[in-house]
Amino acid sequence: MGSMGDESKESFNGVFVPNDTRGKVITCKAAVAWGPKEPLVIQDVQVDPPQSMEVRIKIVFTSICHTDLSAWLGENENQRAFPRILGHEAAGIVESVGEGVIDMKEGDHVVPLFNGECGDCVYCKSEKTNLCGKLRVNPMKRVMSIDGKSRFSSMDGKPIYHFLSTSTFSEYTVVDSGCVVKIDPNASLKKMSLLSCGVSTGVGAAWNTANVQPGSTVAVFGLGAVGLAAAAGARAKGATRIIGVDINPDKFVKGKIMGMTEFINPKDLKRCVNEEIKELTEGGVDYSFECTGNLEVLREAFLSTHDGWGLTVILGIHGSPRLMPVHPMELFDGRRITGSVFGDFKGKSQLPQFAEECLNGVINLDEFITHELPFSKINEAFQLLIEGKSLRCVLQL
Amino acid sequence: MGSMGDESKESFNGVFVPNDTRGKVITCKAAVAWGPKEPLVIQDVQVDPPQSMEVRIKIVFTSICHTDLSAWLGENENQRAFPRILGHEAAGIVESVGEGVIDMKEGDHVVPLFNGECGDCVYCKSEKTNLCGKLRVNPMKRVMSIDGKSRFSSMDGKPIYHFLSTSTFSEYTVVDSGCVVKIDPNASLKKMSLLSCGVSTGVGAAWNTANVQPGSTVAVFGLGAVGLAAAAGARAKGATRIIGVDINPDKFVKGKIMGMTEFINPKDLKRCVNEEIKELTEGGVDYSFECTGNLEVLREAFLSTHDGWGLTVILGIHGSPRLMPVHPMELFDGRRITGSVFGDFKGKSQLPQFAEECLNGVINLDEFITHELPFSKINEAFQLLIEGKSLRCVLQL
Ligand SMILES: NC(=O)c1ccc[n+]([C@@H]2O[C@H](COP(=O)([O-])OP(=O)(O)OC[C@H]3O[C@@H](n4cnc5c(N)ncnc54)[C@H](O)[C@@H]3O)[C@@H](O)[C@H]2O)c1
Ligand SMILES: NC(=O)c1ccc[n+]([C@@H]2O[C@H](COP(=O)([O-])OP(=O)(O)OC[C@H]3O[C@@H](n4cnc5c(N)ncnc54)[C@H](O)[C@@H]3O)[C@@H](O)[C@H]2O)c1
Ligand SMILES: [Zn+2]
Ligand SMILES: [Zn+2]
Ligand SMILES: [Zn+2]
Ligand SMILES: [Zn+2]
Repeated sequence: MGSMGDESKESFNGVFVPNDTRGKVITCKAAVAWGPKEPLVIQDVQVDPPQSMEVRIKIVFTSICHTDLSAWLGENENQRAFPRILGHEAAGIVESVGEGVIDMKEGDHVVPLFNGECGDCVYCKSEKTNLCGKLRVNPMKRVMSIDGKSRFSSMDGKPIYHFLSTSTFSEYTVVDSGCVVKIDPNASLKKMSLLSCGVSTGVGAAWNTANVQPGSTVAVFGLGAVGLAAAAGARAKGATRIIGVDINPDKFVKGKIMGMTEFINPKDLKRCVNEEIKELTEGGVDYSFECTGNLEVLREAFLSTHDGWGLTVILGIHGSPRLMPVHPMELFDGRRITGSVFGDFKGKSQLPQFAEECLNGVINLDEFITHELPFSKINEAFQLLIEGKSLRCVLQL
Repeated sequence: MGSMGDESKESFNGVFVPNDTRGKVITCKAAVAWGPKEPLVIQDVQVDPPQSMEVRIKIVFTSICHTDLSAWLGENENQRAFPRILGHEAAGIVESVGEGVIDMKEGDHVVPLFNGECGDCVYCKSEKTNLCGKLRVNPMKRVMSIDGKSRFSSMDGKPIYHFLSTSTFSEYTVVDSGCVVKIDPNASLKKMSLLSCGVSTGVGAAWNTANVQPGSTVAVFGLGAVGLAAAAGARAKGATRIIGVDINPDKFVKGKIMGMTEFINPKDLKRCVNEEIKELTEGGVDYSFECTGNLEVLREAFLSTHDGWGLTVILGIHGSPRLMPVHPMELFDGRRITGSVFGDFKGKSQLPQFAEECLNGVINLDEFITHELPFSKINEAFQLLIEGKSLRCVLQL
């Protein structure tokens, strides 16, 4: 643990010896999920070389997002696939690249993207969306596109599935070249790992999806890394009141640091949160962000906005098959609702610029790292997230 | 009927003698709804003088919108109220004004507004909404705000309820001064009556709510006056493909005139409409307009848009208590959905300008008038709408 802050050593760290492994199967440690709620097993796995337009990355830091937790819990039955290597929030170094990859090379510092960007399709060419036609987030995907196979296998040769096109709970992983972005080699990989999902998603939701205006009012439901990042993003754009809502009041401490001005613990109220917020804000907030994945919370977030112009951004992943708890006539009150994937950032084309802004202090990344552990303690890190004790526990591989 | 086209006579028409009636109760004919699906009864009613900030209007032309039909059918049980004077699409002449009304006077040509604009509240002062805090559309409202009373009564003195703040199926009606807008006295009142609801709603949905861009693709579900107006509005803004969807193929003739380029009768398809549209348009339209009030149609309209950026505008009034048939995760595909009341036009401040544009030929109002009948034949006019034979049947009072 002592060397984790020492960024200069990262590239020379561990087993990273590019020229020896290129083109070969790498045997390394990964944390394998064998079934819902079964503790991850740190075991040797084999990682195939990258195929055409793929990149093999040595993961240096990874952390756990709630989406990993949901997958591990098996919340959405259709999306279960085991054994599997979870994880999608990380930063690392290119070990080798497959045929045709020209925008990255061995040794480049990179961040994996669960919501990829091919750069070539009608979606990527449109300014209106960050959902690539080929590489957009796909929770059903478990193998590589080019050959329908996994690049991971157990030592006895049985396939282990990929997760969110990234599978970062492994010393090495293979991703599509559109699912990884090169970053400034001088930036701390530890911090950059946060941009791989949670922080970019929350900040981007405020900046890109909602386009929060100076002087506006905001409510954030769920103060995990995503919700706090939405608050920090709104604050950076000049929102004056930011109300944090969480059933875990321990989260309010960090909320304050991130720029939140008021807090509501629904458990302390005798009435609905939306009624409280409407009273506090003379009719409702301009923007609300739902960062819990809970449908009741989604409805409260929706009703907490001001009628006439309020916008609710859904960030939480809703595993329940239940429909959106909104009646079509409720949209006639002028409240809008929209979803946001990865904060509407286009990963490959916009993340480097966002990383720079973070390094310039627009968003304080350090505050999101509440714990640091060695990779071997990944089950402990899951526990910290489950218990609401961590925002991001960064694991060093 | 012979004189209906003769606009110059409108003001001198019938019982309109301002100076005799001012301040007095007027006895006149109205079409009263006594219960769901019971034929309207043309009978004498008493119309009280306008109170403070109210206006009494002599209705010259009125037509029937599907929303009147829904109210007459009693589709939404909570909103039933009988006896009631329905009607909200009309044009007329100010008979007298109540205390404090300074923006209108006797003899002014006006159009009633079911979605009023007080001009003073936080909503009216915001550019983001046309939903006035006091006078926005309210299907539950049945009496005047100032005293909680009706201005209509039967000859034996029993109250008859208002509808949508307008109640235009009467020779005289009383409305809040924020629920009526003065228009150019040289404009045809018959044509102006269309701007009172259907045409403004449809065109405004394309112009204001969706902000249809040149070169874009559109699908319109339900080719009544509202849907056709949405098409005409989209066409005026340069949409290149406009697909009309209706189960009544007779509507396609008018659809073509309004600028629609293709038509789909769902009954002719072996697959879902959204699949057909996605194939026709390489992935879906940029905008869809739901103008039927049917939840299954709403879902088709939603899925017919292009993922990543498609926008569905709900215009239909959905009486069913069922929730919106959309799963929150479906919003993660980048399709948006929004409601539109009166096409997001602010009635008092924007209708005069829109009327001028129509008179300049941007929207051809004549095409929406498929039938003309005397007021006494209002039940026939309802029948024409029910049978899908009319767009707007204009009744002359
Ligand atoms: N849209 C995207 O691209 C995207 C990206 C990352 C994460 N996510 C999703 O965002 C959500 C948040 O992720 P995270 O990593 O910040 O999770 P987290 O577990 O760190 O935080 C969730 C927070 O919500 C709070 N919460 C739970 N139930 C609540 C309730 N009923 N009322 C109020 N607060 C409640 C918890 O106490 C916790 O603080 C998850 O659903 C995750 O899957 C979405
Ligand atoms: N949002 C607003 O401000 C506003 C204003 C006016 C009207 N409305 C509503 O808009 C809707 C349309 O009004 P209108 O006056 O044009 O009605 P209309 O009856 O003239 O037209 C409705 C059309 O929908 C078609 N239709 C019905 N079921 C269908 C189906 N399953 N698939 C395809 N087409 C179908 C009918 O054949 C008809 O052509 C109504 O619900 C009305 O209440 C809303
Ligand atoms: Zn995540
Ligand atoms: Zn793409
Ligand atoms: Zn209407
Ligand atoms: Zn107002």
